[in-house]
Amino acid sequence: MAVNLQPLPDLLPVAGIRIGTTAADIRRQNRRDLVVIECAAGTRAAAVFTQNRFCAAPVLVARDHLALAGPRALVINTGFANAGTGEPGRQDALAICDELARQLGVDTTEILPFSTGVIGERLPVERITSGLAGCIAALDERGWTEAAAGIMTTDTQPKAATVREMIGGVPVTVTGIAKGAGMICPNMATMLAFIATDAPVGQAALDALVRSAARVSFNRITVDGDTSTNDSCVLLATGRAGGETIGQPEGQAYQALLQMVTRLFTTLAQAIIRDAEGATKFITVDVCGGHTEEECLEVAHTIAHSPLVKTAFFASDPNWGRILAAVGRARIGQLDVASVTMHINGVCIVRGGARAPDYSEEQGKVAMSQQEIALKVDLGLGAASVRVWTSDLSHEYVRINAEYRS
Amino acid sequence: MAVNLQPLPDLLPVAGIRIGTTAADIRRQNRRDLVVIECAAGTRAAAVFTQNRFCAAPVLVARDHLALAGPRALVINTGFANAGTGEPGRQDALAICDELARQLGVDTTEILPFSTGVIGERLPVERITSGLAGCIAALDERGWTEAAAGIMTTDTQPKAATVREMIGGVPVTVTGIAKGAGMICPNMATMLAFIATDAPVGQAALDALVRSAARVSFNRITVDGDTSTNDSCVLLATGRAGGETIGQPEGQAYQALLQMVTRLFTTLAQAIIRDAEGATKFITVDVCGGHTEEECLEVAHTIAHSPLVKTAFFASDPNWGRILAAVGRARIGQLDVASVTMHINGVCIVRGGARAPDYSEEQGKVAMSQQEIALKVDLGLGAASVRVWTSDLSHEYVRINAEYRS
Repeated sequence: MAVNLQPLPDLLPVAGIRIGTTAADIRRQNRRDLVVIECAAGTRAAAVFTQNRFCAAPVLVARDHLALAGPRALVINTGFANAGTGEPGRQDALAICDELARQLGVDTTEILPFSTGVIGERLPVERITSGLAGCIAALDERGWTEAAAGIMTTDTQPKAATVREMIGGVPVTVTGIAKGAGMICPNMATMLAFIATDAPVGQAALDALVRSAARVSFNRITVDGDTSTNDSCVLLATGRAGGETIGQPEGQAYQALLQMVTRLFTTLAQAIIRDAEGATKFITVDVCGGHTEEECLEVAHTIAHSPLVKTAFFASDPNWGRILAAVGRARIGQLDVASVTMHINGVCIVRGGARAPDYSEEQGKVAMSQQEIALKVDLGLGAASVRVWTSDLSHEYVRINAEYRS
Repeated sequence: MAVNLQPLPDLLPVAGIRIGTTAADIRRQNRRDLVVIECAAGTRAAAVFTQNRFCAAPVLVARDHLALAGPRALVINTGFANAGTGEPGRQDALAICDELARQLGVDTTEILPFSTGVIGERLPVERITSGLAGCIAALDERGWTEAAAGIMTTDTQPKAATVREMIGGVPVTVTGIAKGAGMICPNMATMLAFIATDAPVGQAALDALVRSAARVSFNRITVDGDTSTNDSCVLLATGRAGGETIGQPEGQAYQALLQMVTRLFTTLAQAIIRDAEGATKFITVDVCGGHTEEECLEVAHTIAHSPLVKTAFFASDPNWGRILAAVGRARIGQLDVASVTMHINGVCIVRGGARAPDYSEEQGKVAMSQQEIALKVDLGLGAASVRVWTSDLSHEYVRINAEYRS
C-alpha cells in the first residue's frame, strides 16, 4: 500500500562497483537476504551512522574499519539486526568480515558489515558465511536491482535511484539503494542506504558530501520517531569517471556533485516514507518562522510524531486542533500563539492562532482527503525553516508491528 | 475494554459541596454533558493547568478568576474544548460564567469554567446557558456519581475515588472525579479532575498540596504523549470538617492530608490509564539509576511514547529490543549501555546492556501476556528514579482516533 511510489527505474552501473545477492535462508526460506557490494581498489567511502546509544554490533565494526582502510566490500544481511547482542555480537560481525575477506583475498578491515531485522538475537553466522560464495559468484555491475530487493525487511517495494550528469567535462553517475519502512526517525543516517558514484572525490570532500546530503534528506524523515539501532548510510566513490579530483567544497564541481547526491538521497528518503508501514498518505511538514532550524525541527517532529495528528491524517479528518495542540506542546523556548499560521494543501486553516475566519470544514475535508499532503506551519517568530516528511498512523501500522515477529 | 478498572465505589459527600448534572444537548442529544459544582462560601481552591501554549479559553479564564476570588461554583461542559478559538472563545467562557453567577447571585469572578471535547470549534453558548437551570435544580451533595459520568468524552467508564480518615482528631473526607482517555500526557495537570475535601486548609498549603500530589500522579501518566490544551486539576477545600487550619507543610496534619490526597489523585490517574483509548494492558514503567529524576522521566517517556514498544505490548510480544532501542535514543546526557538492566514482571531480560544469559523467550512471553505489566529499567548511573503509567497501542486506539469526529 505504498503511496505513489514509482517502480524502480533502470539503474545505471557505477564503474568499479559489482554487487551479488543470494538467498542464505537467514531468517526465512527462499528469499534474497544477503548482499555483497564489491568496490574496486582505491574506492573511498564516507558514512553516517545511527546516534542511538544501543547501536548495533555491525555499526561498531563498520565504524572501526572505515577509520582504518578504504573498503573493498560491504556485506549486508536482513533478518536479524545483531543489536543488543553485546561482545558476542561484535565477534559474529567480525567472523563474517573475516570469511568474506578470505574469499576475496583482502584484509578484514577492508570489509564493512551491515545488518537489519529483529533486535536482540544472535546472527546465524554459519548460514551467512555459507551464503557468501553465492554472492561472490553473482557479482555483477548490474546487480543493483537485485540488491535493492535483498536488503528489504517490512518494505513492500524495493527502493533505488540513479542519476547521470556531466561534471567537469566528464559524465558522472550516482546510483543507490535504501531500505526502511518502520523504526524510522534517523538521526545522522537512515535505516540502510548504499550509494555509489564513479566521481573522483577526495576523502574530506566525501565526508562533507555525505553529511550535507543526509542532513536534508535521511535526517528529515520520520515514521514513528523510533531511531533504529542500525541506521547506516554509506557513500562510495570509485573515481573511475576520471577527471580532476573533487576536493574543494567551495568549488563548482563539488557543488554540482552535492546537488546530484542530495537529489538522489532525497528520492531514496522519500521512498522510505512512501513505503512506510501502513502508510496511506505522504505528508510534507514545513515549519517556518522559527528562530533557529533546531526550533523548527522540534515543532515539525512534535507534529509528525503525534499519534493523534497521524490518525487524523489517516481518517482524512481536518481535525486541525490536534496539530495546533502539538505545536503548543513542542519543547521550544517561546511561542506567541497569536502569531501562528497554518495551511494544509494551500487552504489557510489557522491565522493569528485561531481558526481562519474564511475557513470552512468543507475546504479542510478536500485538502485532507488527498494522498499527498503539504502542511505548512508558520511560527511567526524568525526566519529559520525546515522540511520533514512523514506518514500517517493506520490500522495497518498496528497490524504490521503487532505481528512482526509472529 | 478498560483494564481492570473497578466499578465506582459509593462516593462520600464532602460537606459544603453540592453538584448538579444535566443533559444540555451540547454536542450530542440525551447524554449528560453539563455539570455545576457549587462550593460553600469560604471554600478555597488550588489548581494546576496544562502547560500547552495553546491552552484553551476556559483555562485562561479559570486562571484569572482563581487569582481574584475563592470559587463559589465550577461549570464543566463536554463536547467542545473551546480551544484554538481565540478571543471570541474567551468571551464565550465569560458569558457562561456571567449567566451562572447571575443565577447563583454571586460574582462572575467566583465562577471557574472548564471544557473538554473537540478543539477548534466555538461553544454553543446558548444551549449551555439554557442548561444551567437544570444543573442548579439538581444540586445535591450526593451528585458526585452523576457528575463523573457527565464529564466523560471518549471514556468508557466514569472515574471517581473517595477516602475518609481522621486528621487532627476530626474525620476528613476527600472525594474526586476525573475524565480522560486520549490526548493524555499531562504536564502540570491532567485532562479534567475535580477533587474536594472538607479539611480546613490554608491557601499556601492547598497550593503546595495540589502541586505535590499532581507531580507523582496526573503528571506521571501518558497515553499518547499528546498534552491536551484543556488539562485542569482543581482541589477544593471547604473547611467544613472543622478542627485547626492546616497550614504548615512540615506539620503532621499536612503530611497526613498530603498522603490522602496523593493516594486519591493516583487512583484517579491510574483509572485514566486503565480506561485509555483502546488499552488492553496497564503498564507501570519504573526507571531507576538515573542521575536526576528528569533524566529518568525522559527515558520513561521515550519508552512509554514509542509506537513500536506500545504495539509490542499490545501483541504480548517480548520484543525487548524495541525497549532497548527506545532507551538508547532517549535525550539524556550520557548512557553507559553496558550498565543497563531490564526486568518485565520480575523476569530479568537484559543485563549488562545485552540479553541476560539465563533469559528464555518462553519466560518473556509469559511476562508480556499479563494484563498488568511492570517494566523496570535500571540505567546504572545514579540514585534517582521515577514511575510512569501508560497503555498499549491497539487497533482500537487507531479506530477511536480515526473516527472520533465522524
